[in-house]
Amino acid sequence: MDFSIRAANLEDCKDIARMIMELAEYEKVSEHVKVTQKDLEQDGFSKNPFFHGIVAEVPEAQRTKDGHVKIGYALYFLSYSSWKGRCVYMEDLYVMPEFRGKGIGKALMSKVAQLGMAAGCTQLNFTVLDWNKASLDFYAAQGCSDVTAALGYHVMRCEGEELERLAQP
Amino acid sequence: MDFSIRAANLEDCKDIARMIMELAEYEKVSEHVKVTQKDLEQDGFSKNPFFHGIVAEVPEAQRTKDGHVKIGYALYFLSYSSWKGRCVYMEDLYVMPEFRGKGIGKALMSKVAQLGMAAGCTQLNFTVLDWNKASLDFYAAQGCSDVTAALGYHVMRCEGEELERLAQP
Repeated sequence: MDFSIRAANLEDCKDIARMIMELAEYEKVSEHVKVTQKDLEQDGFSKNPFFHGIVAEVPEAQRTKDGHVKIGYALYFLSYSSWKGRCVYMEDLYVMPEFRGKGIGKALMSKVAQLGMAAGCTQLNFTVLDWNKASLDFYAAQGCSDVTAALGYHVMRCEGEELERLAQP
Repeated sequence: MDFSIRAANLEDCKDIARMIMELAEYEKVSEHVKVTQKDLEQDGFSKNPFFHGIVAEVPEAQRTKDGHVKIGYALYFLSYSSWKGRCVYMEDLYVMPEFRGKGIGKALMSKVAQLGMAAGCTQLNFTVLDWNKASLDFYAAQGCSDVTAALGYHVMRCEGEELERLAQP
């Protein structure tokens, strides 16, 4: 299968927003998605962007029945570990179901690793849902380790009214 | 107890590096700390910094027996959720043991939440070790929830030779 991977630009935000929703539907959480195409345009493609993106494209001849040629994406941002220093965080990795098993997900993730290393990062971090056996197997095959299982790290969160309360001096 | 909280600057990196090591010793992982004062200076205080910091200071009269007045810190950076949009990630929160129980940790965390909300973030994320009951209780009291326990998110990581292999096209 022919495909190419390139940096995302403003014109990709419509397709990225579509695929974010597809991924959320797969994870059974689409009602939680608040991010819109416009949010992605503002937050990823203005000065001091909050994230970066890459997209996977197939040739026109291989477009989906709905006419899509942008069939996968990854979002990432630079982060920091007070032990290890510069890190890259992969927020999302997605390939449309009909294009899986062809090395596209691996190529997207490899690109995120390359871009992170080029920025001086020595660690790639991300999260995965523990019921998602297919993803866990995929990531293990790429040499990733489960830090929660091995070291006991838990992801903690504060949002909504709790965040507003916390922010009060 | 009098204390003040302010944005960290280049001159604070020596004390932050000291406290990073103290925190790592508490978490029994000091052999994993590679970050130096110089790394913090370069990565946090040049153009496009990888993180931001805040420090807690006490008056000279309350300095430690080793002469320290910078007795707590938090490191954070802006991040992104493809569901919720702009987020703030708290990498570290630390108060020297003899200054705990006086509201300094809460004030540092509140400041991170304020700074995040001022940047448009609607979510604060961080990780905690599951054996660290004192921290878990503290964070629960601040309105934080354990996303790993509630939703099954696991932290995944790729580094070292595995990251180099992953980055090969």
